[in-house]
Amino acid sequence: MNNDYLAMQQLAANTIRGLAMDGVQKANSGHPGMPMGMADTAVVLWTQFLKYNPQDPKWFDRDRFILSAGHGSMLLYSLLHLTGFPLTMDDLKQFRQWNSMTPGHPESHLTPGVETTTGPLGQGITNAVGFALAERWLAERFNKDDFDIVDHYTYVIAGDGDLMEGISHEACSLAGHLGLGKLIVLYDDNGISIDGSTDLAFTEDVIKRFEAYGWQTMEINGHDPKQVANAIRKAQADVARPSLIACKTTIGFGSPNRAGTSKAHGEPLGEAEVKLAKEKLGLPVDETFYVPDGVREFMGSAGLAGVGRQKDWEAALAQYAEEYPAEAVLFRQMLNDELPPDWTAVYPKFEVGKGVATRASSGQVLNTIALHVPQLLGGSADLTGSNKTDLKGEAALTKNDFSGRYIHFGVREHGMGGIMNGIALHGGIRPYGGGFLVFSDYMRGSVRLAALMGVGVIYVFTHDSIGLGEDGPTHQPIEHVMSLRTIPNLHVIRPAEAGETAVAWRAALESKHAPTALILTRQNLPTLDRRQYPSADGLLKGAYVLSDADDFQVILIGTGSEVQIALDAQKLLAEKGVAARVVSMPCWELFSAQPDEYKEAVLPAAVTARVSIEAGVTLGWERYVGSAGTAIGIDHFGASAPYEVLYEQFGLTATAVAEAALSLVG
Amino acid sequence: MNNDYLAMQQLAANTIRGLAMDGVQKANSGHPGMPMGMADTAVVLWTQFLKYNPQDPKWFDRDRFILSAGHGSMLLYSLLHLTGFPLTMDDLKQFRQWNSMTPGHPESHLTPGVETTTGPLGQGITNAVGFALAERWLAERFNKDDFDIVDHYTYVIAGDGDLMEGISHEACSLAGHLGLGKLIVLYDDNGISIDGSTDLAFTEDVIKRFEAYGWQTMEINGHDPKQVANAIRKAQADVARPSLIACKTTIGFGSPNRAGTSKAHGEPLGEAEVKLAKEKLGLPVDETFYVPDGVREFMGSAGLAGVGRQKDWEAALAQYAEEYPAEAVLFRQMLNDELPPDWTAVYPKFEVGKGVATRASSGQVLNTIALHVPQLLGGSADLTGSNKTDLKGEAALTKNDFSGRYIHFGVREHGMGGIMNGIALHGGIRPYGGGFLVFSDYMRGSVRLAALMGVGVIYVFTHDSIGLGEDGPTHQPIEHVMSLRTIPNLHVIRPAEAGETAVAWRAALESKHAPTALILTRQNLPTLDRRQYPSADGLLKGAYVLSDADDFQVILIGTGSEVQIALDAQKLLAEKGVAARVVSMPCWELFSAQPDEYKEAVLPAAVTARVSIEAGVTLGWERYVGSAGTAIGIDHFGASAPYEVLYEQFGLTATAVAEAALSLVG
Repeated sequence: MNNDYLAMQQLAANTIRGLAMDGVQKANSGHPGMPMGMADTAVVLWTQFLKYNPQDPKWFDRDRFILSAGHGSMLLYSLLHLTGFPLTMDDLKQFRQWNSMTPGHPESHLTPGVETTTGPLGQGITNAVGFALAERWLAERFNKDDFDIVDHYTYVIAGDGDLMEGISHEACSLAGHLGLGKLIVLYDDNGISIDGSTDLAFTEDVIKRFEAYGWQTMEINGHDPKQVANAIRKAQADVARPSLIACKTTIGFGSPNRAGTSKAHGEPLGEAEVKLAKEKLGLPVDETFYVPDGVREFMGSAGLAGVGRQKDWEAALAQYAEEYPAEAVLFRQMLNDELPPDWTAVYPKFEVGKGVATRASSGQVLNTIALHVPQLLGGSADLTGSNKTDLKGEAALTKNDFSGRYIHFGVREHGMGGIMNGIALHGGIRPYGGGFLVFSDYMRGSVRLAALMGVGVIYVFTHDSIGLGEDGPTHQPIEHVMSLRTIPNLHVIRPAEAGETAVAWRAALESKHAPTALILTRQNLPTLDRRQYPSADGLLKGAYVLSDADDFQVILIGTGSEVQIALDAQKLLAEKGVAARVVSMPCWELFSAQPDEYKEAVLPAAVTARVSIEAGVTLGWERYVGSAGTAIGIDHFGASAPYEVLYEQFGLTATAVAEAALSLVG
Repeated sequence: MNNDYLAMQQLAANTIRGLAMDGVQKANSGHPGMPMGMADTAVVLWTQFLKYNPQDPKWFDRDRFILSAGHGSMLLYSLLHLTGFPLTMDDLKQFRQWNSMTPGHPESHLTPGVETTTGPLGQGITNAVGFALAERWLAERFNKDDFDIVDHYTYVIAGDGDLMEGISHEACSLAGHLGLGKLIVLYDDNGISIDGSTDLAFTEDVIKRFEAYGWQTMEINGHDPKQVANAIRKAQADVARPSLIACKTTIGFGSPNRAGTSKAHGEPLGEAEVKLAKEKLGLPVDETFYVPDGVREFMGSAGLAGVGRQKDWEAALAQYAEEYPAEAVLFRQMLNDELPPDWTAVYPKFEVGKGVATRASSGQVLNTIALHVPQLLGGSADLTGSNKTDLKGEAALTKNDFSGRYIHFGVREHGMGGIMNGIALHGGIRPYGGGFLVFSDYMRGSVRLAALMGVGVIYVFTHDSIGLGEDGPTHQPIEHVMSLRTIPNLHVIRPAEAGETAVAWRAALESKHAPTALILTRQNLPTLDRRQYPSADGLLKGAYVLSDADDFQVILIGTGSEVQIALDAQKLLAEKGVAARVVSMPCWELFSAQPDEYKEAVLPAAVTARVSIEAGVTLGWERYVGSAGTAIGIDHFGASAPYEVLYEQFGLTATAVAEAALSLVG
């Protein structure tokens, strides 16, 4: 590196500092300190290492760059702008404004070049574990001695906050366990969090902690480009371990009065201080959003090279397709997330009337579908046998062998959720993950982000009610089904029996832009005879008439295990001369997306006598039973006892439903 | 120790193994492996170290014992039974049955001697950090050179699953940071989780990790009573650091065919294997729930001594009261969680009409109340300035100085939630903790347990809607208020302005058996003139008529920042000749607890034209607006922009409310 080059690195970093200060100042909100602190490191990464093509931000074999400390979004936007991504100076000026491409925190569904939506701390670095896992798994499946068609790194910039969050502990421990050598984390070790010095709350030995996880670790000066470059090279060289590079930096670097303080973290520096900082950094004091001559060229050279690299990769892929046609077809199929053309062929058959838990029918469905959907890769948070998530005959991933198709996530629900998001965002894989429904609480932060980003991950949440019985209230979901329904863009599907469970998996896989939570029982439920009842494909519309009656006076609505109770109540009512319709309503979100005519056909407005039954809180059921109806459920915590006792004690019975219906029509 | 003593230790441990096997076998569900593995360690702890009085399980200065691996509940129940707590053999036989004292997982609100409700992994060890923090804080405040009236240890048995969960990483890192020397964790290092060997997913170096957190660490054979006793002594001797004692054990110890395997973890051993195990352990093969002669006496001796220790402590406390009367009064006041007799005296005054964010008025209220409620101790998850949770003039706790009154939890929401639960359960302190509402997702696991246990912790959740503006959808709660409302026994209070905020704090403090979530704005809201409007004490009833109109045709219901919009809409409607009542509804749970007459008085059934407005999902609002009403809210994710723009773009305006009302009455 000659002096000119060093000077240009410095100038580029200072340009980013200027843009970050100006962006935050103009918006009058945001976080200038992190971009200013990590600009030197980022410039080295983006000019000397990162593989990407700004003209095709979705090029599959690009390196992934994840700004886990998403509040420093102006760093990422500045990099994207300066390296030639379709993000204009006007976009930068619209930072944090309505309808802009530059929101307060990076949003992957909005801005090209943003790999994942970050801001909620700990999520980005966890996503990155998923990205790196996906890369390695696909590489193991498709690379040949003479073709590395899957070969990219996952780089992360993470801050103190990321490393304090439990989710990062979970994910990084697993990354070490699996030896994800192409995961490289640049830790912005600036010693400052929002409350002040990290000495206030964060004095652990981070290096030692990551060594305990089995990572390679380094400590460098994050303002020294040479140290940064050497560290990244060393990280790349260790293919067996992920690497943590602790970059000592000064938050707000360049700001004479705020650098190194928490005042630089989360608020504008102020006009006067911005000027002082620009002066100190050698930037024109009266210019805003200023890019000196030569900086775009300097920053853009790696991207230009990336155009060629993508071309080379495409040529190699074409060659690969000739030499390995079957693999090439499979590769394309997985990248496109292709699904079976005929679903009925991939539904297993279930014996009518036989009791089978929906978690068990789910396991059978999953194993059948997985034969046709090679991009399915999943696991469980240490509840494989309970969740029935294992793929028969497929091994689990280990540090030394990624040829398997199952992930033991460990007792790490939140980490699992964030890793699944990363896998889905990477592409080429549809991830699923199992856990007890009650512990969806532990991973809610990542479930919400899946919904916000619109990625089609699949949660296999089993033991979905008091039906789990003896484990008691700590393990019995009461509020969870309804509270998951409150998350926008999340499909919550609670099938009633085996037939619906099969269709639920279809709905989940076909939902590529919304995550799906499958809500499954521990206890057995009789499989319905679909010659007698309408097709379970009704599930695809969210709700359907399961059992009708001429001139019905009352509508009984059930979900999951309570649908059978509704059917039993229908019979009791018939004995009393009351005609009832039974509606199975496995998915509110799919139902609400139906045209009004369909909704009216299922739930005619004229019939206001309605009873719902679901083994959970009644809050929310007024939407479907209306002011004149009755919602039967459980508005308190559960208890430890055999489940049949609990259903009886808590009044979730056909008799109770029938009585409620009678009192409405009587 | 002579041979008789060693033999008795062994016999006691084997007795526990027998009870655990029999309890699980009789219930036909449960986890025998952990109690069998940790019986030796537990016997040493409970006979040689633990300070307790089984005749008064709530004696304040007892040591706390927390079974974090709550699935091993038969271990705890066996210990409680054998040491003379009011838990009979019949209770043990009712393990996991309806209405029993021995539920599947330990429940602190149910069974004397159970300190906290565990089962959800990672929670117990996190609670324990709270217990130890509380002990040290009270000791620092009340102990004198000649009186250690607060002087007890916190012991934990934790398993692999506890240590995998992110919440334990957060809490243990903070425990090391604060140097909680009287926290002693016995880690059941048995190498087995439900999925199989921990090699499948958990290969981190746990010892090194805890050293990185600043803990003392040891590795011992958990089946060797001498090693256990020596380790606990060494742990007690290190007053500056918490201690982790990794106890190598064999899960299901004594079971010839299942010991050391995951088959011993979560299911009954089976009748045949139970017999084989009893044979191997030297227990009578055909007896169940068998306690050999001498075991109760052996196990009970420490408890008997505890009776005397409590008497000594009470005598010392009486002496203390004579020498330090002011401190003794304060001590009693805090232990009783006494509250101000006259709340109006502790409400600060707010200037009418002036805009003030409810997070800011909350900060003022908190600071005034804290002067009268010395048991208040709280902090924030690194958002002190944003949450306005600091206590003016009070220092933060540090490793070397616990005289302060503020906790920097770090960016560790889940850890904060679990630690708060432990503090509250310990007694003598009312904990509060601040965070952004959107990150209530991160701590939901511990919020739920607070509600289940019925502890009065207080969450200060700020930035409660799109009103936070530019930070964008990752930080804007949409579903959170409603999804928190789905949790049974949680009070969710969203005050409309400063006056209601003051009363909200009162409601929170008076709620000693239900946690409270205060939902507060970032943006300013005008303070209402309570000479013109009814008293804000209406909040105590959950909802109240804020502004009435003669012969009102429509009811407008608002919460929090949207109450002002409802008031503005009322004026718009009046201009059009439509009379509207405005109801402020800050807390659904308090309202639903009111008598029907009050509810009818506020929301007369005859008036079905109702419009609700809340900046969150509308799901659930049908409960109060009914089938004929309209709920105005946001059923999608937010966006990054100044908040005024968002309110306008998303249709949360007085005009929209008025139009909705007009279309109902028109």
